[in-house]
Amino acid sequence: MGRVTERRRVLRIRGGALSTRPDTLVAEEPLEIRLGGKPLAITMRTPGDDFALAAGFLVSEGVVGRASDVANIVYCAGATRGGPSRSSEVESGGGSNTYNIVDVQLAPGVPLPEITLERNVYTTSSCGLCGKASLDAVRTTAWWPIADTPPVRVAPELLAILPDRLRAAQRVFDRTGGLHAAGLFSPEGELLDLREDVGRHNAVDKLIGRALQSGELPLSRSILLVSGRASFELAQKAVMAGIPLLAAVSAPSSLAVDLAAETGLTLVGFLRGGSMNVYAGEHRLDLHAEAMAGGPAR
Amino acid sequence: MGRVTERRRVLRIRGGALSTRPDTLVAEEPLEIRLGGKPLAITMRTPGDDFALAAGFLVSEGVVGRASDVANIVYCAGATRGGPSRSSEVESGGGSNTYNIVDVQLAPGVPLPEITLERNVYTTSSCGLCGKASLDAVRTTAWWPIADTPPVRVAPELLAILPDRLRAAQRVFDRTGGLHAAGLFSPEGELLDLREDVGRHNAVDKLIGRALQSGELPLSRSILLVSGRASFELAQKAVMAGIPLLAAVSAPSSLAVDLAAETGLTLVGFLRGGSMNVYAGEHRLDLHAEAMAGGPAR
Repeated sequence: MGRVTERRRVLRIRGGALSTRPDTLVAEEPLEIRLGGKPLAITMRTPGDDFALAAGFLVSEGVVGRASDVANIVYCAGATRGGPSRSSEVESGGGSNTYNIVDVQLAPGVPLPEITLERNVYTTSSCGLCGKASLDAVRTTAWWPIADTPPVRVAPELLAILPDRLRAAQRVFDRTGGLHAAGLFSPEGELLDLREDVGRHNAVDKLIGRALQSGELPLSRSILLVSGRASFELAQKAVMAGIPLLAAVSAPSSLAVDLAAETGLTLVGFLRGGSMNVYAGEHRLDLHAEAMAGGPAR
Repeated sequence: MGRVTERRRVLRIRGGALSTRPDTLVAEEPLEIRLGGKPLAITMRTPGDDFALAAGFLVSEGVVGRASDVANIVYCAGATRGGPSRSSEVESGGGSNTYNIVDVQLAPGVPLPEITLERNVYTTSSCGLCGKASLDAVRTTAWWPIADTPPVRVAPELLAILPDRLRAAQRVFDRTGGLHAAGLFSPEGELLDLREDVGRHNAVDKLIGRALQSGELPLSRSILLVSGRASFELAQKAVMAGIPLLAAVSAPSSLAVDLAAETGLTLVGFLRGGSMNVYAGEHRLDLHAEAMAGGPAR
């Protein structure tokens, strides 16, 4: 690893005084994800967990749903030289400059996604959706409904302490201030996994990819907490992984709320300082104690 | 307009008390950008300024560089029904459900970007880069170098007050907490334009697109301030628009710093509370007063 952060010289200006010092920055590098040798997507990510990121990306896109759907994932050799040489397997410890292209081979019988000229969409901004040739394609079909039976039930008091637990476990953020975090918790509030990335979508894909690889999908008894806002795309990723509860420290978007309401996802926003807003799926919140406490006066 | 925010019912939990009320959310909807009738990208954006967003996106991608490169931009009819009917022109005030696909017609002689199977990359996460079939394609070729002659010179004291000015001018954020802002300032600190969006890239593309449409590119005497972090992609958009100084309230990534150093872009991060870090292009900071003030002791 060692590339999660990088050092750069910085000129610091504080209260009119100048100083020059090294600064620790979060590493950002492009990762090209190939499927059967064909380019599928490039994402700007923080290096590390690249195979999990690729696997989780394919779960989010509805391409795979079980560990056995993926035959193998390898780094391509010579990646950063831009040449067309591909897929000679590289050990994860060896080589240099070869870590920005991964190639995923699907298992026999797993259909490739349609990559036709109709889907020939060549770029996008911040969406996770580009390449969908029409708006209809924006909503990926879930592998499974959110099927937590009986429903996961979480007390608001428990949810309220999760952001502190997430932050306490974040390793890189404090040094760089530049990372989004995604944490997976049990209904009892235990931190099961934590991923950090310059891209919030990548952090979630890394979590989901790890779950795929370890045979834990669907994540039907877990809580996903993200450090920032809850966009449509993050809600969609939660649904695709079968996660019943998505909580965000900051605001949700309108479409995230709509998707949550449609799919049965519980969506909690503004989870901070012991307070929260529940936008959908209230039935998973254990509100008994609060209901007894009465209205907003308390 | 009217779709910049939307209202949804929310269950609020504060200190053990429950209340139900309407909440104002930032609107998020997909926008499909077509070029000459062919799908090019889908981005999740806050509705509004859609033509500017499409135009700015094309500037960032290196497709257009002058207002005259764009023949026209229209909404496609029947967009949300998903049918293949396209490009019957719709007045911007009329119709309904037709505002999620825009079609850009380039002027005669402006080459279409290569959309071949080689670039057939169908989706991505949060990158603005997907669809680039190889890592070499990540860096778009700028239409112009950053050519501010003589260089824009800005005093740190002036930069320090820009975040407050940006925040004061943000209309939607305070109601939703869910928007990124991008502001364009003159070297004297005057706010020239402000755009808000759920996607930080969109906010910048909207700014750049407006500048293209009004014949103001390259923006060689302006400062771009973004409310969040400075990613590679935002730095690249600044460079593509000829902006000499990019300032971010939060952290830059390693690749953003590298790109700035290579292209001559001045990159300022952690611009808050009167302090800042200068990562590249110090020559545009008027450091005379500070240098006189001495070292970090003050």
